[in-house]
Amino acid sequence: MATAETFDAVKDDKEGCKASILRHARDFTWQDLPLLRYKEQGTTFKDITRQVLFDGCSSVPTALRYFEIAPGGHSTLERHDHIHVVMVLRGEGEVFLGSEVHRLATHDIVHIPGGTWHQFRATAGISFGFLCLVATQRDRPQLPTPEDIECLRQNPLVAAFIRT
Amino acid sequence: MATAETFDAVKDDKEGCKASILRHARDFTWQDLPLLRYKEQGTTFKDITRQVLFDGCSSVPTALRYFEIAPGGHSTLERHDHIHVVMVLRGEGEVFLGSEVHRLATHDIVHIPGGTWHQFRATAGISFGFLCLVATQRDRPQLPTPEDIECLRQNPLVAAFIRT
Repeated sequence: MATAETFDAVKDDKEGCKASILRHARDFTWQDLPLLRYKEQGTTFKDITRQVLFDGCSSVPTALRYFEIAPGGHSTLERHDHIHVVMVLRGEGEVFLGSEVHRLATHDIVHIPGGTWHQFRATAGISFGFLCLVATQRDRPQLPTPEDIECLRQNPLVAAFIRT
Repeated sequence: MATAETFDAVKDDKEGCKASILRHARDFTWQDLPLLRYKEQGTTFKDITRQVLFDGCSSVPTALRYFEIAPGGHSTLERHDHIHVVMVLRGEGEVFLGSEVHRLATHDIVHIPGGTWHQFRATAGISFGFLCLVATQRDRPQLPTPEDIECLRQNPLVAAFIRT
C-alpha cells in the first residue's frame, strides 16, 4: 500500500503492516497513490480509473478499491462468481444489476452476488465514483456471449442501457 | 444485511446473497438499517454509534461498519491483534495511533496494524464519521492497564489527548 505517512515508532504487526495514514489529496485522489487503468486491456469499458486503497492481507483477504467513471463512461458489462460490495462516494449514476437498471446516489450501497450481470454508467453528466470491496482471491470476470446479450436485450430498458 | 430493496428476479448466489441496494437515507443513515450502540456495555467511550453496512460472508470474511462520533465524543482507547482499515466519510477529527496524535479529514484512510493502541475523537466541533473494515473472525479488544496508561502518558501530547 502506497502511503504518504508511515510511523516508524510503531512496530509492524505480524503481517508486516505499518501504522499509516493515506491522505486524501483532492477530488478523490490520494497522496502518492497511483491512478490506475480500470483494466489492462479491452474495449468493453470507457473513461474509468482505479485506485487501490487497501490491497488485503492474510487476516483481511479483501481489497478496497475506488473506481471513478467520467461523465458518459461505463464499466464492463460482466459477471463472475465473486461478490462485490459497492458504496457510491462521489456523484451519482446508474447500475444494471441482474435484470434491472437502478439509479444510485452518493452513499448508496450495492450488493452484487456471484453470477449476476452488472454494469455501472455515469449517466448524470457528473463523475461517478464508488468504493468496491472484493476478495483478494477471485475468479476472472466473464463477458456476455452474443446469446447472453440477445437475452438481456429482451427487456427494452436493459437494451437501451447496456454498453458492450 | 437489512436492505430497503432486494430483487427477487435475481437468484441468490451460492452464499445466499441477494442482489440488493441499501439506500442512503440522510445524514449517514441508511434505509431500514439499525442505528446500533458502539458496544453493548462499558464506560470507555462517549457519543458514538455503529451501523453494519456489510456483515461479511464466506468468500469475503470482512465486515464494513460505519461509526459516527458526535462532537466531543470518542471511541475506546484499545488495541487488539486484528487490523483495521478506516476511511473518514464525514467531518473531521483526530486519532491517537500507536504513539502519536494525527488530524484526520474527510476521505483520509488510516491503517491500524495489530497490537497498536488507538482512539478516535471528534475534536473539531462537528460529527466525525468513518468506515471501518475488519475481519469477521477477530480477537476481542484489550483495554489499557494502569501501567499501560502511565506509559502512554509519558508523551504530554498523548497524555492530553487520550480518554480512558
